[in-house]
Amino acid sequence: MLNILQDVKCASTTQTLIKTDLFNALPSDISASLISAAKNIFLNKNDALFLQHDSARWFYFIVSGWVKIYRETQDGEEAVIELLGEGDFVNESSFLEDNHYTSNAAAAEKTHLIRLPIALLEEATKRSHKTALAMLSAFAIKRQRQAQELEGLKLQNAPQRIGCFLLRQCGGKLNGTHSVSLPYGKSLIATQLGMKGETFSRALKKLKAATHVDVQGSKVHVPEVLELADFVCAGCSNEYPCKEFLLDPRQKSSA
Amino acid sequence: MLNILQDVKCASTTQTLIKTDLFNALPSDISASLISAAKNIFLNKNDALFLQHDSARWFYFIVSGWVKIYRETQDGEEAVIELLGEGDFVNESSFLEDNHYTSNAAAAEKTHLIRLPIALLEEATKRSHKTALAMLSAFAIKRQRQAQELEGLKLQNAPQRIGCFLLRQCGGKLNGTHSVSLPYGKSLIATQLGMKGETFSRALKKLKAATHVDVQGSKVHVPEVLELADFVCAGCSNEYPCKEFLLDPRQKSSA
Repeated sequence: MLNILQDVKCASTTQTLIKTDLFNALPSDISASLISAAKNIFLNKNDALFLQHDSARWFYFIVSGWVKIYRETQDGEEAVIELLGEGDFVNESSFLEDNHYTSNAAAAEKTHLIRLPIALLEEATKRSHKTALAMLSAFAIKRQRQAQELEGLKLQNAPQRIGCFLLRQCGGKLNGTHSVSLPYGKSLIATQLGMKGETFSRALKKLKAATHVDVQGSKVHVPEVLELADFVCAGCSNEYPCKEFLLDPRQKSSA
Repeated sequence: MLNILQDVKCASTTQTLIKTDLFNALPSDISASLISAAKNIFLNKNDALFLQHDSARWFYFIVSGWVKIYRETQDGEEAVIELLGEGDFVNESSFLEDNHYTSNAAAAEKTHLIRLPIALLEEATKRSHKTALAMLSAFAIKRQRQAQELEGLKLQNAPQRIGCFLLRQCGGKLNGTHSVSLPYGKSLIATQLGMKGETFSRALKKLKAATHVDVQGSKVHVPEVLELADFVCAGCSNEYPCKEFLLDPRQKSSA
């Protein structure tokens, strides 16, 4: 399942991990234990990281790439619950959820992760109030993300949902032209937005006609961010640029 | 906005509140302060409780009834983010989210709540490790609910989503006939499931044809729970009865 499992010897890799809010809130003996137990994992696109219902022994830190958290029906249909990127933790709260992975995880692109033992994080949370508070803050951010996504799925039509995704790639730019590369493939974007491939293609055509956005392969050209925002945000409770988006630290990496 | 605001004098009302996991985890001086600051609120259907973006001074405990947490576009379209019922807290984590209400809240039916000052809960969480851990557990349950809902919105078709809602009213019954009353109105159920009224009506017809479920007004008759589960759970990653559902304490009240 895992392509390469290596000790983490590179200082720059651990530095990124150590600078996170969660690591800063750990008792020092536990952060030292975590660093010495850390292993690098390098995954190619579509490689599995873990499976739903399996016993959860690890949590992960994403150094680079994208991890999709998804569930699958008996018939093999996929629902992407979350897409996590650079600087995000994966499965850090499983010890609050029956110690099992509640979804599947796989690399959405070539991905570098650090694997860490979840038992140490559980111990830290139970022993240190500061760690518990950091876990709470992280939870609050992820919950806001989910609430925003639920709102989009219920209120926005398909072209608006694609437009919202593209708008988020513009990193909060207030107006003018913006060119950007899609962070991962279109079929994954479609799944993430809860659409079949055909619906996605039709909706993208409508979006192009309505907002003059141009998508060629993975390159996106937005001639006027405000025109796109007018179209997208009519189906949302927030005004552009939405505060939730700007407050979310993971946007730093995709902006 | 609030129909009646009264001191909480009735012991049986406070007993329900005091028995919650969250209250059990509070420092005793803070739970005493909360009880003496508690006020009863009685709302009629559609009465507003609070508005998105307003400064959040209170959190609430639902004694009876239903509260819908929702957001609204400029055009007045509504997305129901959550429906909270008897025994649920409302807005208990706003101090982690910028001290503002992140959504609107209104009574979905005649509802009795207890209003409590959020500043005291914030103080308790910052002072007591035990409280922070109780907050984390509550967060984990709500996050699982949201993940399950996201999965349903992305994977299940409209008749399956309605069927899943009805199946949850059967309280985990494994087979046989089940009759139940809808907990709130059909138009709210439609909004909660992310459907317009017409889509809901068409989907309900398809569901009836496929599973022989009968819905007359607010009365639902399920001739065979397993037949309904077969139809619904084909579009889901869980098998019936799903573990997430049975682990969720709020199901105790609706079961």
